[in-house]
Formats: sequence, structure tokens, C-alpha cells
Amino acid sequence: MNKIFLATSLALLMGLSSGFSQATEVFSEEDLAAVAQLRERGLQGSGGFDVVEELTTLVGARLAGSPEDAKAVAWAQAYLTEAGFDRVWLEPVTFPTWHRNKEEAKITSPIEREMVTLALGFSPPTPAGGVEAQVVMLDDYDALEAVDASVVEGKIIFIRNRMERARDGSGYGPAVRARSLGARIAAQKGAVAYVIRSIGTSTNRFAHTGAQRFDVGVRSLPAVAISNPDADQLERVMALGEPVSLHIEVDAEFVEAYTSHNVIAEITGAKYPDEVVAIGAHLDSWDVGTGALDDGAGIGIVTEAGRLIKALDQRPDRSIHIIHFAAEEIGLWGGRAWAEKNKDRMNLIQVGAESDFGAGPIYSMRAKVSEEAKPVIRAIHEQLSPLGIAFDGWGAYGGPDFRPAAAYGLAAIDLRQDGRNYFDYHHTENDTLDKIDPQHMVQNATAYAILAWLSAQSPVKFGSGPDLIEE
Amino acid sequence: MNKIFLATSLALLMGLSSGFSQATEVFSEEDLAAVAQLRERGLQGSGGFDVVEELTTLVGARLAGSPEDAKAVAWAQAYLTEAGFDRVWLEPVTFPTWHRNKEEAKITSPIEREMVTLALGFSPPTPAGGVEAQVVMLDDYDALEAVDASVVEGKIIFIRNRMERARDGSGYGPAVRARSLGARIAAQKGAVAYVIRSIGTSTNRFAHTGAQRFDVGVRSLPAVAISNPDADQLERVMALGEPVSLHIEVDAEFVEAYTSHNVIAEITGAKYPDEVVAIGAHLDSWDVGTGALDDGAGIGIVTEAGRLIKALDQRPDRSIHIIHFAAEEIGLWGGRAWAEKNKDRMNLIQVGAESDFGAGPIYSMRAKVSEEAKPVIRAIHEQLSPLGIAFDGWGAYGGPDFRPAAAYGLAAIDLRQDGRNYFDYHHTENDTLDKIDPQHMVQNATAYAILAWLSAQSPVKFGSGPDLIEE
Repeated sequence: MNKIFLATSLALLMGLSSGFSQATEVFSEEDLAAVAQLRERGLQGSGGFDVVEELTTLVGARLAGSPEDAKAVAWAQAYLTEAGFDRVWLEPVTFPTWHRNKEEAKITSPIEREMVTLALGFSPPTPAGGVEAQVVMLDDYDALEAVDASVVEGKIIFIRNRMERARDGSGYGPAVRARSLGARIAAQKGAVAYVIRSIGTSTNRFAHTGAQRFDVGVRSLPAVAISNPDADQLERVMALGEPVSLHIEVDAEFVEAYTSHNVIAEITGAKYPDEVVAIGAHLDSWDVGTGALDDGAGIGIVTEAGRLIKALDQRPDRSIHIIHFAAEEIGLWGGRAWAEKNKDRMNLIQVGAESDFGAGPIYSMRAKVSEEAKPVIRAIHEQLSPLGIAFDGWGAYGGPDFRPAAAYGLAAIDLRQDGRNYFDYHHTENDTLDKIDPQHMVQNATAYAILAWLSAQSPVKFGSGPDLIEE
Repeated sequence: MNKIFLATSLALLMGLSSGFSQATEVFSEEDLAAVAQLRERGLQGSGGFDVVEELTTLVGARLAGSPEDAKAVAWAQAYLTEAGFDRVWLEPVTFPTWHRNKEEAKITSPIEREMVTLALGFSPPTPAGGVEAQVVMLDDYDALEAVDASVVEGKIIFIRNRMERARDGSGYGPAVRARSLGARIAAQKGAVAYVIRSIGTSTNRFAHTGAQRFDVGVRSLPAVAISNPDADQLERVMALGEPVSLHIEVDAEFVEAYTSHNVIAEITGAKYPDEVVAIGAHLDSWDVGTGALDDGAGIGIVTEAGRLIKALDQRPDRSIHIIHFAAEEIGLWGGRAWAEKNKDRMNLIQVGAESDFGAGPIYSMRAKVSEEAKPVIRAIHEQLSPLGIAFDGWGAYGGPDFRPAAAYGLAAIDLRQDGRNYFDYHHTENDTLDKIDPQHMVQNATAYAILAWLSAQSPVKFGSGPDLIEE
């Protein structure tokens, strides 16, 4: 039976239903036999742990625009070529960047205490020797927006709010505004430096770095995060009731433009080579730790998914792209470049799905696709369900590097990972290989392989294009 | 009834039995009413968390011989005086010490990678600019003893063994030999520097410092510990099969003699003021973190125990000493000084018990006492049992600072804490206040209060003196 006819009929049939479907009515026997093979081999495979092991061992941290960025790109190109994909190529990505030389934060009065700190991305330097001033503590970003300039003028601002732990990482968004937007607000109000409690869930003594929004010509302040135990200490010292002074020193440099590359490996489609299933992760990391969870794990997961599909006897109908994105951390630059490059052929991109939330197990799937494609998504989910993956509804963004393509209507699938512990390590010195459970990567890689394979074999397109653009 | 007669009879009666006893047959109604009060107030109290909070907030890390050591002694003297103990005094303790200026460890070939590191206590400095050499990896201390000098001459030795996690901390002893004794063996065999995997159970990226055995005139080597994730990385790099080189730099200074003080607070005994129940903890800490678990927690626990007893309507029969020992970390100097000072009056020391294993709950009690005192110990245990404390047999050492007094036959009691997580933090930057569960301190302080109280009220002496000296 013609797969496209079948799926279209199913879609019509199920328009008003709850969406029941069976993979056997959507996919051919051969395609499902391949799924069985992917599942079996995937679950016996490395999950891509060997990939992240090699990347973090040989390259380590790889901040976009650093010498290690170039090493990582060369490594990825060589690794994917060696792995035998049909084509491997680089696409240039140009962006502004930044690097730290050093940072220090200490309490100078009424007691003296060094604090564990990291400058936030794009922090301007302090004058040599640093700045010292009395500190004003504020509860959160909203309090910063509300505070009168007279209260903070000439002072160092400290924002004490702490992110909440949650499986889906939902504590990050509310807390991270203090990091991404706070320093420029503090600058407007006449403060002299900006300090935040680390945006992380751990009580270990690591500071959490990360990007601040950066726009040329907008004035900001030297900005650092202090570790959670040091933030606790600062709060205790403030509770003594005397004026508290801090000394903050940052030496860092802004870099106007650097060109890195998205690295793309292709398994060329047998029937529709121009149509593309895109799975990805980002190759860059912050400059501390070794970027094992963020996002070495994702690089391993999608690379292994590609290897599993390549090893099948069958070729996919559509092409499958394994994308190692550049410069995600400092502004989604790889994702932006990819969106720009593909905006006029978005209808040829079947779907985008990025793995960028560490190495926790996938617990659910959600999708943004056309109505017509929904029964296919149900059928794909049916094949993922044995891996412990629930269906989570319609609406997805595909991960940070596919978000820029949302503006052009990219169909997207999210395989949602348990991120309960992710923000214990994220953007810290402590994001190292030992934090990864290889068994969880095995589940992830197997799921991405099945997802990519069935997306490539789908009887219908998922609907990327103007219809999927959200207002 | 005369308590001494009763207990003696009981002891005779129970010489051949399994040791059944009842507190009501050993202690007076008044003494047991006081226990009930200690238990009730103790469990509603702070557990001494307020004490360790103040110490770590105001003083922080306090390496023996550092300016913070003097601050800690002044703090303790003021704090104990303010708390209203009958007498508070200082006893001088003189020792050699050491301080770090900086340390660095990196892999220089075949890849470059900074490692998180701490110099080990008493490490000599490297020449300015450090030393660089090929590394030889050995499994453990035994392998170091066995290795032929020709294998390690001119090399940097790396010992890779890792301590095992255990409730009673029993993984520490076997692993720590590599730290305390390794560098001098490595020096004898002609190596140029000495590196160990951190003696700790955590996979967080903290290095673990600690003392090395130090003897004037014995040659040693610059010695550092690297964090467990960095040790993993070094092992992975070595597994690549190429020669691996490290660069090690240590700047540190030896200090020939410094005088600090044991700080002692007394609740003076009503009947036998010259007889002393000694509970203690050590006031010094390593120079990283804030010494919250090691041993701020112990300082809080025994200080709170003293406060609870002081608040009773009754006075103890014997004196109770709350001892804040000096310079434990770098060689048990406070404990040695206390033993020397008391060696000729050991028969007047009822018992020694130190809290120095973090803030985990106490799960068992063991004792080294005379035969005659064993029924009293059983009766004391009966009163501790409602706190979840099992009896663990005969044989105890009283904690590190009472160990030197073992040579003079000190009777000792161990209240054994669950130390499963202790070596995740011990001697690292990460030993901070937030690692303490105040509820566990409450159980600890209540147990020490009951133990000290009943030891002071015991109808018999516990037997300190020549009879308890072990060969």
C-alpha cells in the first residue's frame, strides 16, 4: 500500500480522535525491521560515550572563538569523516566573542574572605586593581528592576535568588534573567559592579558562568557569579548588620569577530536526497570544566545515532544530517547561521531535533508538526515508547540551535531529558566526563536513531514552512 | 544505696555474663532525671550549629600557625567565656608548620590540560618555574614501595589508587598512606615530584590536601593531589599510549615553630573537682574551605553538650572539660600537648571522647575502660540507645586528639558517626557550612551531653592509667 495515501487517510480519520495510530499502518515492514535493529544495536552500543570521551579528553573545554574551538572543529571533521558518513563538510559561522583572563571576588569588610567566582560571559573588565564598594543585596531580577537608583549608585549589587531544581529544568528560566540581563540594568542605575548567586542547583563550591546579552554600544558592568556556598556566606555576613564591602576584579577581553564552523555529516537519502532530517548538538562549550554534559553528551548521542543508522543495510529515504553546531553558548550563532542558510528551503527540512540537556534519560517526546503529520508522530512515539518515553503533546522547539529556524517554520521534535541534576554541573569547572552515566547515553542515542530513521522514512512531510511559523 | 558499692557488685556479677545492666541500678534518680532533661533540651536545641556557623562565618579556614589560627583561639576563648562556663583558659601548644603560596599541575604532553590541584601539607617548593618530566603511573603505595628506582628516576610519580566509600571511613587508612608517606619514598628512588589522586570519595572537581609525615632532615619531594576527575583525565591520557609529561609547581614555606593554644572550658565538679571528663574537638582546620565539617561541627557539638550540662540545675560530680584542640591537622599537636600535660595525673582523667568525623549521625558507641567500669558503660549506652546508637564493643581510641594519651592509658569512648559522605568534603575547598545537616548535630550534641554527664556521675572511675596501656 502506498504509504503517503495511508498516512493521509489516517490523518483525516484521526483529525477529531485522540490520535490513535499504529506504526504498522504508517511504516513498512522493512522500516520497522530496521527500527528493531536500531533498538537492539543501540542498546548494546556505546551510546556515543566513546565520542564524548574522546572529545573531552583530547580537546577539553572549547569556548567559541578560542584556540580549542578550532581544535574541536578539526576533531569533529576528522572524527565524522573517519566514521564513514557519506559527506562531511563545514559551514562558516561568524560571531563576536569574549575571553576571560582572570576574576576575583572577595569580602573585604567587616571580615575578609575570598569567594569562588567566575566572570559572566561578555563582562567588561574592571580597572586594573579592581573595584571596591559597599554591597547592596537584592532578592531577584524584579527587585533590581524596581530598585531606585539612589539606593545602588556607587555600590556593588548582589542578587541573591537561587534557581529551583526541576526535572524539566524549568527553574532555570526565571533565575537566569538575573544573569543575562542584570548587569546592564545595574549599569543604568549607577552601580559599579554586579554580582549574582550562581544560577545552579548544586551546593558544591563552583561558580556558574554563562552568557549575558550583549549589544554593541550598550553599557554594562563588570559582572561575576559567586558559588552557592559563597553566596550563603555573603548573606550570613550581611545578616551581621554592619555595612559589607566587596572587592571585584575582572580581566577579560571582547573579540569583535571570529569565524568558526558548523560541522555537518550526511547520510544521503536514497529517494529524496534533498530532504533533510536534522539532528544536532553543539560542539562549543564554556571555558571551564570540559563541556562533558554541555554539550559533549549531545555530540556523542547524535553522532552515535548517525552511526547506528549508517550501519543499517537500508539507506534512509531522506538525507539525515548530524550537525555539530558552533558557538551556541555565546548566542546561538551556529543555529542562527543554519537557519539563515536554510530559510529559503525550509520546506525541505523534515524536522530539527537537538540534544542539549546533558546525559539524563529521555522521559518524553513532544512535537511541532503539521496536522497531517501527527499520526506519523504518534507512530514514531509508539516505537520510542519501549525506551520509557511518554508522549507529551504538540508544541516543541527542537532545542536551542533549532530555535532560530522556528522563525521560518521549522518542524521540531523535543526528546525531553531528565535534567534534575543537570544544573548541578552546567557551566562550571565540574562539568567533566565522570558526571555522565553511559547507560543513559545508550537510551538517548537509541531514541535519536529511531526518531531520525522514522522521520526519514515518514510517508508525509512534517510541514516545515510558513504554516508552522508561530506569531 | 551507695553507687560505688552497687556498680562494683554489678561488675563482679556480670564478669561472665553478656553484660546486662540497667541504668536505674547504676545511676541515681536525680542523675537520670537530668539525662531526661538533657535529652529533651538537647533535641530541641541548636545542636551547636550556631557555634559552627559563627566560627566559619567570622573566622573561616584556620590552618594551624596562620593568622586565622590566632583569630580562632581568640574567638573560642571569648565564645566559651561568654557562654558562662566556670573557667576558660588557654594551654600553649608549639609545633612546626607550613603554608602554601601557590600550586599548579598540568599535563603538558601529548595534550595540554590544567588540573585542579592542592599541594600536600609540608610539601617543599619546586624551583621557581616548576619541574617538568615524564610521568610514571603506579597503582598504589605498595607499588611505590616495590618499584625499582631505575623506573622512576628523574620522573614524576603518579599514584592512582582511590579510596573506597564506607560508613566508618575505613577506606581512608589504606589510601592515605600514599599521601602521608609516599613523597619521601619517591624522593629516595630519585623521582622529581610526586602526584596522587585525591584521597576522597567525591567525583567533584576538588583536590584533597592533608598532612604528610614530616621529620627534620628527611628529604622529600614537591607533592600535590589532583582532583578525582583530573586523575581520571590523566589516566585516560596515559591510556593513549604515548609518553605523558606533567608540569608541577609548588610554592610553599616551612615554619619552624609556632605557638597556638588548646582552649579549655570547665564545668567544675561538685564532688571531685580534680577528676575530669574530657570531651573535645579540634579548632584548627586545613587552609581551604571553611573547616565546617572538619572540625567546626565537632566544636559545635561538644560546646553545645557543655552548654546543655551547664544549664542543668545539678552540678556534675566530676569536672567536665570542653577542649578545643590546637593543630590537629598537621600532627595532633594539641592532643600531644594535652597528653604530656596530663600524663602524670592520667588516673584523674575519667575519659576522653573527641568529635572529629563531621556532622553525620552517631550510629554506635564503643569504649576502652577497666572491667569494673563496663557495667557503667552499658548503663550509659542504655541512655544513648533512644538516640539510635548501638553498642559496638570494647576497644576505642577516643578520637585523634586523645590518641597520644593512649600511651598513658587514657580511658576512651568513641561515639561513631556515619561518615559515608565525610570524605566527599574533607580537606577540600568544598568543606563549607551548607554541608552540615543541623538535625544530625542535634543528635550528636545530645549524645555527647548525656555521655559526659553520666561519665561525670559514674559510681566508678573508668580506669585511666597504666592498666589501660596497650602494648
